[in-house]
Amino acid sequence: MNTKFINAKVLKTSDDHTFNIIDGEVWVKGNEIIFAGEKDKGPSKTADESGDPIVWERTIDCEGNLIMPGLKDAHTHTAMTFLRSFADDLPLSDWLYKQVFPREGQLTEDDVYWLDILGIMEYLTSGITSNFDMYFFPQKNGKASNDCGFRTVQTSGFNDFGSSIEEVEERYLAVNEIGPLQSFIMGFHAEYTTSMERMEGIAKLCQKYKSPCFLHNSETEAEVKGCLERYGKTPTALTESLGMYEYGGGGYHCVWFSDEDFEIFKKHNLFAVTNPCSNLKLASGIAPVKRFIDEGISLAIGTDGPASNNALDMWREMYLTSTLSKVREMDAASIKADEILYAATVGGAHAMNLPDCDRIEEGKKADIILIDLQQPNMQPENNIVKNLVYAGGKQNVLLTMVDGKILYENGKYDIGFEPKDIYKKANEIIGRMR
Amino acid sequence: MNTKFINAKVLKTSDDHTFNIIDGEVWVKGNEIIFAGEKDKGPSKTADESGDPIVWERTIDCEGNLIMPGLKDAHTHTAMTFLRSFADDLPLSDWLYKQVFPREGQLTEDDVYWLDILGIMEYLTSGITSNFDMYFFPQKNGKASNDCGFRTVQTSGFNDFGSSIEEVEERYLAVNEIGPLQSFIMGFHAEYTTSMERMEGIAKLCQKYKSPCFLHNSETEAEVKGCLERYGKTPTALTESLGMYEYGGGGYHCVWFSDEDFEIFKKHNLFAVTNPCSNLKLASGIAPVKRFIDEGISLAIGTDGPASNNALDMWREMYLTSTLSKVREMDAASIKADEILYAATVGGAHAMNLPDCDRIEEGKKADIILIDLQQPNMQPENNIVKNLVYAGGKQNVLLTMVDGKILYENGKYDIGFEPKDIYKKANEIIGRMR
Repeated sequence: MNTKFINAKVLKTSDDHTFNIIDGEVWVKGNEIIFAGEKDKGPSKTADESGDPIVWERTIDCEGNLIMPGLKDAHTHTAMTFLRSFADDLPLSDWLYKQVFPREGQLTEDDVYWLDILGIMEYLTSGITSNFDMYFFPQKNGKASNDCGFRTVQTSGFNDFGSSIEEVEERYLAVNEIGPLQSFIMGFHAEYTTSMERMEGIAKLCQKYKSPCFLHNSETEAEVKGCLERYGKTPTALTESLGMYEYGGGGYHCVWFSDEDFEIFKKHNLFAVTNPCSNLKLASGIAPVKRFIDEGISLAIGTDGPASNNALDMWREMYLTSTLSKVREMDAASIKADEILYAATVGGAHAMNLPDCDRIEEGKKADIILIDLQQPNMQPENNIVKNLVYAGGKQNVLLTMVDGKILYENGKYDIGFEPKDIYKKANEIIGRMR
Repeated sequence: MNTKFINAKVLKTSDDHTFNIIDGEVWVKGNEIIFAGEKDKGPSKTADESGDPIVWERTIDCEGNLIMPGLKDAHTHTAMTFLRSFADDLPLSDWLYKQVFPREGQLTEDDVYWLDILGIMEYLTSGITSNFDMYFFPQKNGKASNDCGFRTVQTSGFNDFGSSIEEVEERYLAVNEIGPLQSFIMGFHAEYTTSMERMEGIAKLCQKYKSPCFLHNSETEAEVKGCLERYGKTPTALTESLGMYEYGGGGYHCVWFSDEDFEIFKKHNLFAVTNPCSNLKLASGIAPVKRFIDEGISLAIGTDGPASNNALDMWREMYLTSTLSKVREMDAASIKADEILYAATVGGAHAMNLPDCDRIEEGKKADIILIDLQQPNMQPENNIVKNLVYAGGKQNVLLTMVDGKILYENGKYDIGFEPKDIYKKANEIIGRMR
């Protein structure tokens, strides 16, 4: 499928974490962006390698709307869709131990498949073109994403209560074999759920496969205190001491950080993946986003799972990443909108080891969204990036393309499933567990 | 226009601040709800006063989607749309004194008219059926709202820098004459911008017209400290001592409250109108929402103006009213979703003295919205109220009806103006001031 987007505004990303917007076109050949620039400055490269002219199956008149890189949801547990709004407004421990865990224990592989598809539909409505997922049954999760044509990077939720280290290795190899849209990075759930022996096993796998390592890190104050009591070290210092970060990686949440933790993140070029909605709703705290940015630590943004959020909406996360940081610092000038949009696009793509999905540029993968600027929340056009970060929302997403294929357009999905069937499955699954 | 909504889920409001949802129908005759109940339990009242059968101009098949009361934006400065994303990420004082005030000084009455319409369009996309507005040129503001068929309650932004107390009285009388959709409640900008003499003038008008009184109250810590230095009292205690609350009223923001302030709010049945997005973005702080609820103080929710937010989106406000309170208290169980939806509907309507616009019930005004439950963020249907508060958004708003007239439906407006003309006006107005 070759698609030409014409009459567009095109969001171009600069290495200094700023953006500029040009009037122009974006040409997609197969799964690749072959041109992104001004209308009359297109390349002579209008023929493919054989010399024949490219056949444009679709030419989309963007009517002045914005083409930009898809948003990257850099931490989530997609299949938790079944627990959305199931048991909110409870203390964290009651929610997790009495409501969530007992029901997760009843999930089958098939359940996860259907619940993933519900989540993927929501990602598409939010202009999300890839997710960094952690959940049970990674092979099935990968199959669901692949069947939809979606791009998913997974990591392991390994802990003391489930599979063996051998199974983690097996999953790593299996998911990385599914196809080009699917990949797996080493990781585990968190220090507070995983024994030393098991963490050492993960560290060995990271070294064997030269993989980065990701985990829930310093999400709550209690978690950090517990780790200090158990090991005399913060989760960051402990996992570093186990040799987990030789090939990079990062942490999800990263709310309660010590000075040493910041230094370790800098030393190993680790990614801080912030999850502001979940941290609010579960009353975990507000992450030190300004300090991550000031210290040059790469920032990415994720929704966390739909049970603790409850939406899979990167627009709300972007808004909160900026504004929560402002109120944490009590300084309205402490964060710039451009940094946030950079984190949600380039930051996420790089955290997920998807360097070719980070921006709208020749040679990059066509993970692209089209944003409706002709809605009142995007007017006047004083500053389009600020409009996106501070006023944008799902209602502005006209089209979501992953790997050159349009999966969502004007409220309709092209993922091989009917919404009503997916909704029925999701309601049946949770219905079984009431 | 008589409209029958069939095959709907209908959100019914209980006096204990909870909701239940029934399958049924809502019948609107003229601007009034004449029935809201189960399909086969309709009233015999199918004829109007003359005994003739009611002619249903439209019957809308809701396909199982949700009819609920429109959201009330209980504090805003609508026409500030021209400054959306104009000068964000600055310290509050630079933003206000160097960017906002000089440009507001250049606004004409006509500018405000067009900028209001842009804001009203956005309210409609967010399922907002009335706004509590404070801005320059109230008569023109009222005309804009009235021309659109929108419902607006205004208050005065009176302070030391503009009009006289006589003009406030004139505006009060003029706006209350515009028509049934428009009203005016006494008020002034804030203690820190208004001299004692002028505040006393407002207090007299409140008493003369038996009007409630509203103002920006304790938005920032500096404001409260300043008031204590000037008068030895908090803004709440000071305004009470001037006799402003004999007929009720309330405060916008209410972030920095003393124990005495809570007592005064209880004593006079004042409304606390919370503005979480603006308080974050301007780094003002997090309001004590849980305590307002626990002490039985009526809560309402507003967006504040689009320059400090930057969206006019009550979904985001509802989400943050709950989740910010949770992180303020460091207790995920501290707030229930139902309380938030109650504040955004009943709380707002009552703060604005619109007791007939607060719920879906026979005899109430038809300020109604239709919410799409067939989107992935609303599935599964574990708890529809929690889905609305924690996962809902503008993308779920299918239809917004004000006073029995459908002003917004499936992305199209019926307000007498074309979006592109309004966008052009807004861009021209700010373009003139760059």
